[in-house]
Amino acid sequence: MSDETKSEVIQPRILRGFRDYLPEEMRPRQAMIQTITEVFERFGFAPLQTPALEYADILLGKYGADAEKLLYRFTDNGGRDVCLRYDLTVPLARVAAQYHDLPKPLKRYQVAPVWRAEKPGRGRYREFFQCDVDIVGSSSLLCDAECVAVDDAVMTALGVENFTIRISTRKVLTALGEALGVESEAQLNTIFRTIDKLPSQGPERVRELMASDAGCSPEQIDLIMNFVGIEGSNEEKLARVVEVVGPAAEPAARELEQVLRYAEALGAPAARVEVDFSIARGLDYYTGTVYETFLNDLPGFGSVMSGGRYDGLITRFLGKPMPAVGISVGVDRLFAGLLELGLVKKTRSNVRAMVAAYDADCVPACLETLTALRRAGVASELAFDDETKPTLKKQMKAANAKDAPFVVILGPDEIERNVVCLKNMETREQETLPLAQAIERLRGA
Amino acid sequence: MSDETKSEVIQPRILRGFRDYLPEEMRPRQAMIQTITEVFERFGFAPLQTPALEYADILLGKYGADAEKLLYRFTDNGGRDVCLRYDLTVPLARVAAQYHDLPKPLKRYQVAPVWRAEKPGRGRYREFFQCDVDIVGSSSLLCDAECVAVDDAVMTALGVENFTIRISTRKVLTALGEALGVESEAQLNTIFRTIDKLPSQGPERVRELMASDAGCSPEQIDLIMNFVGIEGSNEEKLARVVEVVGPAAEPAARELEQVLRYAEALGAPAARVEVDFSIARGLDYYTGTVYETFLNDLPGFGSVMSGGRYDGLITRFLGKPMPAVGISVGVDRLFAGLLELGLVKKTRSNVRAMVAAYDADCVPACLETLTALRRAGVASELAFDDETKPTLKKQMKAANAKDAPFVVILGPDEIERNVVCLKNMETREQETLPLAQAIERLRGA
Repeated sequence: MSDETKSEVIQPRILRGFRDYLPEEMRPRQAMIQTITEVFERFGFAPLQTPALEYADILLGKYGADAEKLLYRFTDNGGRDVCLRYDLTVPLARVAAQYHDLPKPLKRYQVAPVWRAEKPGRGRYREFFQCDVDIVGSSSLLCDAECVAVDDAVMTALGVENFTIRISTRKVLTALGEALGVESEAQLNTIFRTIDKLPSQGPERVRELMASDAGCSPEQIDLIMNFVGIEGSNEEKLARVVEVVGPAAEPAARELEQVLRYAEALGAPAARVEVDFSIARGLDYYTGTVYETFLNDLPGFGSVMSGGRYDGLITRFLGKPMPAVGISVGVDRLFAGLLELGLVKKTRSNVRAMVAAYDADCVPACLETLTALRRAGVASELAFDDETKPTLKKQMKAANAKDAPFVVILGPDEIERNVVCLKNMETREQETLPLAQAIERLRGA
Repeated sequence: MSDETKSEVIQPRILRGFRDYLPEEMRPRQAMIQTITEVFERFGFAPLQTPALEYADILLGKYGADAEKLLYRFTDNGGRDVCLRYDLTVPLARVAAQYHDLPKPLKRYQVAPVWRAEKPGRGRYREFFQCDVDIVGSSSLLCDAECVAVDDAVMTALGVENFTIRISTRKVLTALGEALGVESEAQLNTIFRTIDKLPSQGPERVRELMASDAGCSPEQIDLIMNFVGIEGSNEEKLARVVEVVGPAAEPAARELEQVLRYAEALGAPAARVEVDFSIARGLDYYTGTVYETFLNDLPGFGSVMSGGRYDGLITRFLGKPMPAVGISVGVDRLFAGLLELGLVKKTRSNVRAMVAAYDADCVPACLETLTALRRAGVASELAFDDETKPTLKKQMKAANAKDAPFVVILGPDEIERNVVCLKNMETREQETLPLAQAIERLRGA
């Protein structure tokens, strides 16, 4: 290569915080998403798709100051102030307001990437997929419970057994705010966001942040830590919260109790749903029930499915009340978790058979055989990529590299006798049989 | 509502050239994509996913000047010069160079949105989905033919019967360039791009553009128009092109002939594959075979599946040769075409049954029944969204709005007798039977 050509080579590289999914991971990941959406469909949710880009004012002022620093925001070629979506919830709120005559309750799901300019870290990416279900237009607690039920059904369908859905409500936090005597919504939101950091930062650091960031007095901090430290069975916690926060927490506690009851009736076993008042969810738009989901065998792994009720968000676009509740799978984190738990496996290929030619003269018969296999629904491809001089050794190597379970070999003998040689790559056994029979074998398990 | 609240309402709106897919379109569109990827898997292609954002220098200088004006390019929060992807081919080329030890030939597919700041028009959007297959690492014409075969198989699987795959090769254009005496690659690319405008702009306008944009002499324009006007059967065209362009076109004609032969052996009927020298493909990176696919019942609709060989593209990232060929489904255009042809239908819901309560006392039994239906795999949901006062009239209306074929009704009688009332919404017939039997009915066709 000349120096000139060399100097033109562009270094192939990916942006920090972004990732490629190569086939061996992409296939099981795709199967996981398929399982999730099948559960969603079973629960009566319908697919919906929104664009990656939105006008900036659609997204701004919805998530809270910390979150909005992470928006990918730029001016497009036409001078418009635009953002890549940060989640799928605010775009849904925009849709629900824009097409306000869609029949309610609107139950939709969406699987799509979102972008956040976070500091990249272990398992934390700047582009990641979410898989959301939401119910728009109903304030019934049945809908809150439906989210818990779909969460449980998704985890179960994926083969996860040991998980906990943690549940709380923003209303109990509002009652806490009253008990603390905090009137500023901004301060209250900072307190909620700081509570949300408890699992990652620990109680000592959260105490510090409550003083420095949220401007709380030592007495206020004591009450908050008392509150998040409430322990016991779900029943005990719901009783205790009223003692700690006061009677203002009573309606919130009754609501949570009802959601738990409905969720059990909708199929989520009570043993898997745990009241946890430290769950606040970092985003400003939540107004009622909030959920997170943890894989108990992977402590410290973070929530894999989270959401809540956001009765005020669509109102921002619609000018009149429109309740909504939803829950979102963190696709990439959940996939990483399932890999770690051994519940999904990387696979190099889904090819069932590769077709090999003894020599160049056999190539036309190979093409015909390949076409017959594919028409019969057998995922298959050629074992050679140079039809002018195929060698069996190279073709067997190619079949091994792709983990193909079978190779169909065609030589002059087979072609003359109108049969094929079917080689099982695991047992190394091979047998000679008519193509139709080979196809039967290949279609079976 | 107070004036203050009113003034805060954000107008819900979407960016020009972007679109939402509401459930009634999204479901059949999703089914179409599923059918396409099943064909891809059957042909031995594996899924791969790349990020929406790439470093600008990865994309720049690959597509040609006209195309690159349409890039969504901006500076990210970290000061990096980035672009939203313009297609899936250049990101694949980056991947193939970056993970250069992936087993070859690498056969991958990807379904993902791409972004182009085009002037929006009928059926032309700034965000649209592509669904690509590519074969990297082989220069065998079998791979070129495989793209034709997969194109034919995709269209056939989608129920399209009347379509034509048009095929040519850039090499015949290179020979034309020699015959024209054009040495500048830039001028040649402008000529190719102008040829590509023939279907949309017509021969007169293309003649003008050849003079104004491509700087061609009248003699050169005559030769070009002679060339793109070659008619007859595939065989006749391949003979005629050598006459018009000269012997320099001979190897290109032989190559195309071979691709046609292989494509037929791989299952694409010869009658559906037509040589057409006016196909140039607007992007600079193509070097060999190029394809487009037209729905014959929708003249002027544009190509729904296009691609070609690009042997020089990966080289730009790798510094050494790496051949590749691929073809891409224009998902949104194809879907619009299938809708117009009546081959897909909008559907309001996939819900098989809705569960209705006679009154509030029946709600717990309804939840139990709903859970049993879902566990049996029946897509179902509640017909009421206010559990405190469900009315049958409202619930029947909800079931109609969702096109639910069945409603399972529970009243005090049914609950006492441990049965359900199953109403067929089409025939209006209803029958009373145990839940297990109702489930059998609902699972059947």
